[in-house]
Amino acid sequence: MSELSNAARRYSREHADQFRGELHEMLRIPSLSADPAHAGDIRRMAEWLATHMRELGLGNVAVMPTAGHPVVYGEWLGAGADRPTMLVYGHYDVVPALMEDGWHTDPFEPVEKDGNIYARGATDDKGQLFIHVKALESWLKTAGRAPINVKFLLEGEEEISSPNLVPFIKEHLDLLSADLCVISDSSMRSIDEPAILHSLRGMTYVEMEVHGPTDDLHSGLWGGAAHNPALALVEILGKLYNPDNTIAVPGFYDDVVPLTDEERAMIAKTDLSEEQYKASTGVPAIWGDANYNIRERIAARPTLDINGMWSGWTGPGPKTIIPSKASAKFSSRLVGNQDPNKIFELIKSYIESITPSTVTVDVRLLTTGKAALFPFDTPEMQAASRAYEEGWGATPIFTRGGGSIPVVAEIADLMDMPVVMMGYGLDDDGLHSPNERFSIEMFHRGIETAIVYMEELARTTDQ
Amino acid sequence: MSELSNAARRYSREHADQFRGELHEMLRIPSLSADPAHAGDIRRMAEWLATHMRELGLGNVAVMPTAGHPVVYGEWLGAGADRPTMLVYGHYDVVPALMEDGWHTDPFEPVEKDGNIYARGATDDKGQLFIHVKALESWLKTAGRAPINVKFLLEGEEEISSPNLVPFIKEHLDLLSADLCVISDSSMRSIDEPAILHSLRGMTYVEMEVHGPTDDLHSGLWGGAAHNPALALVEILGKLYNPDNTIAVPGFYDDVVPLTDEERAMIAKTDLSEEQYKASTGVPAIWGDANYNIRERIAARPTLDINGMWSGWTGPGPKTIIPSKASAKFSSRLVGNQDPNKIFELIKSYIESITPSTVTVDVRLLTTGKAALFPFDTPEMQAASRAYEEGWGATPIFTRGGGSIPVVAEIADLMDMPVVMMGYGLDDDGLHSPNERFSIEMFHRGIETAIVYMEELARTTDQ
Repeated sequence: MSELSNAARRYSREHADQFRGELHEMLRIPSLSADPAHAGDIRRMAEWLATHMRELGLGNVAVMPTAGHPVVYGEWLGAGADRPTMLVYGHYDVVPALMEDGWHTDPFEPVEKDGNIYARGATDDKGQLFIHVKALESWLKTAGRAPINVKFLLEGEEEISSPNLVPFIKEHLDLLSADLCVISDSSMRSIDEPAILHSLRGMTYVEMEVHGPTDDLHSGLWGGAAHNPALALVEILGKLYNPDNTIAVPGFYDDVVPLTDEERAMIAKTDLSEEQYKASTGVPAIWGDANYNIRERIAARPTLDINGMWSGWTGPGPKTIIPSKASAKFSSRLVGNQDPNKIFELIKSYIESITPSTVTVDVRLLTTGKAALFPFDTPEMQAASRAYEEGWGATPIFTRGGGSIPVVAEIADLMDMPVVMMGYGLDDDGLHSPNERFSIEMFHRGIETAIVYMEELARTTDQ
Repeated sequence: MSELSNAARRYSREHADQFRGELHEMLRIPSLSADPAHAGDIRRMAEWLATHMRELGLGNVAVMPTAGHPVVYGEWLGAGADRPTMLVYGHYDVVPALMEDGWHTDPFEPVEKDGNIYARGATDDKGQLFIHVKALESWLKTAGRAPINVKFLLEGEEEISSPNLVPFIKEHLDLLSADLCVISDSSMRSIDEPAILHSLRGMTYVEMEVHGPTDDLHSGLWGGAAHNPALALVEILGKLYNPDNTIAVPGFYDDVVPLTDEERAMIAKTDLSEEQYKASTGVPAIWGDANYNIRERIAARPTLDINGMWSGWTGPGPKTIIPSKASAKFSSRLVGNQDPNKIFELIKSYIESITPSTVTVDVRLLTTGKAALFPFDTPEMQAASRAYEEGWGATPIFTRGGGSIPVVAEIADLMDMPVVMMGYGLDDDGLHSPNERFSIEMFHRGIETAIVYMEELARTTDQ
């Protein structure tokens, strides 16, 4: 705690309205990365960030091209070479959002209500990445400098699995070099229980299509002797699971690093009760592998979830066809040390082996991401812990995240730096869902914690 | 064979051009029942038929209102009370047809080419219903009378599931009373293999929805402890079938009238080879209940087919959600004496019994239709058989139709009369498809068969 950081924190509170107003501007830009029709909005979002960083006095600011959507880069290196350099990774793209999905208000017209900001991207990840921009601003506008050097790497393709980030990093290793990477793109259970993630799940995302007749058939004229592709799909997908809710793909668990007793004891502290899980999700009952508690199931164990499924007539009323094909998308969340490509091959071979000769099947890999697993007894991790105590007002827990930020493992591997995941969202912020929101109080506490973290990182080099 | 019927047949051949010209006039009227914009054409078509029947000397001709499109009624009762009365059911409405669907010529400007008349409604059902009108004309213009009494019940809503036909029949039971009903609205495999249908399949059409979390969940944050509704749907649908491809719903087959050896022998004559079925549908292999041949599976046995299925993300690329719900439409083709409502209750109870407590399920009935099953050792059926031998020149097969014409069972039940289904189309006439056609030779042979049938029916009362 210093006079300087207190001044920066005061500034951030005094400019709370301005900060939120700027966040609203970002949230109004529908920067959907998956939809080519929104390429202009992606561009607009990138330019907005670059302009904003330039206005704050950052240097070397650029909207840098990739084979896909651009990366926004900016830096402030005024702390000097003897101070640590922190690379902030974030993403300015968002997933789709349509009113008919159940939004109560326009997903791209932010609304503040009941202490939250409602908008697509509010928590994932515009609100969280902006915390670091505002923390740096608070230092620069008060002390005229920050305690450490800061670089920003803001990408526009996280929601489509960052296809161009690795090539970008490889081409710009010098530009991006730093002592650590900080990512705020995760969440905690409640405002009183901040969490620092030391692990993330990886992913193998698969799309499959079952083909039967050449065209849809009249079910009255042909039904009874054709294997309905929707039924065949159902039968295949049903065989991906065992009756005890474990995954039936042979070899699937072979490379999973077993949880130690120590880690299980720590995870137990952050476990969710059945009632909490039910209240957060609305499910009528808990499901899963009974050998693990809920937190382990959702964060430390691999999964396989159907993400989408479609076949035949989906409009109103009856239509008596046998569909010519049936499709599904599904994905596995992986843990260390499962290899995403090996898992895909296991899944593909298994599906092909159980597909009957009455239909044909096509199994394709959509995306992969490696799981990440870091030690948490390092200076950066301990500095983060102190920053929460001070800036947030609560001692954080080191825990595993169930989600996947594939770039985390890649950043750590490619640039050989530790990644500290300081998520400022809440578990029930509804990211990727209708009515995504971000707690206003957490936005502001996050900025204060980030302010303190810079000072704590500087202190790691004072010793 | 009599002098009188020979004269009527000769007349029909001599007036072939005139008959086809009149059919062309009918085919030029786009009497689409599903499209309110064509209500005037429906009316025009009904008036055309009424005018035509009046000109032929039929009595009591009227365009009779219903809550929807009108019924055209007409009668010739000059054969006397001691002769049978035949009720001809047909429909003058058609399904939509657009050039862009792949028509080679205007669907409402009939073209004669390669022995066919191409136009929407050519075979379904304008051409087929007109056969009976022209058969009666041929009798009246030669003998001055017909051997039996004839009534016409021509509706304009068959293609939209005849919503007003049952009320109409109930209100006019006396007017419509007859000894049998003849319907020509089906087809044969080839011109040399005329078929008399003595059975049609019924239907129970169901829609179900499985609900899990309140909203879509992020699969990384929550995956592992929530029963994915798409997986639950898959598990439930998979349990609707036994491993031998029979339907697993308890009680489903209880009321099925077993096929007799005699009927199986007859069905065997019209069986499809595996190669024929594969060539017609494009499926890679045959599927189904190995205890029955292909024709039995598709026409004489009940089925359960998934018609549509949808859940979660179905757009391009990955989206890592656990969908909040998953839905399916499926329908059973039923056979005598399965009761569609009872079958729905069995399905609903079974699904509810196998749905785990980790999700909730909603099972709804969309539509039903009763199966029809008539004995074929009756005088009317045997008279029809003789009529084909004589008028068509080939011995017909009594067979079962796999499709559903719900009004057939309703006509039989409400008016307590046998229904004889003498279809004059070909299986590949393309009904409901682009370039629908009707064989000119079959049109004329149909008229001759219908002429002879009247005489054969009269003879059933000579004994």
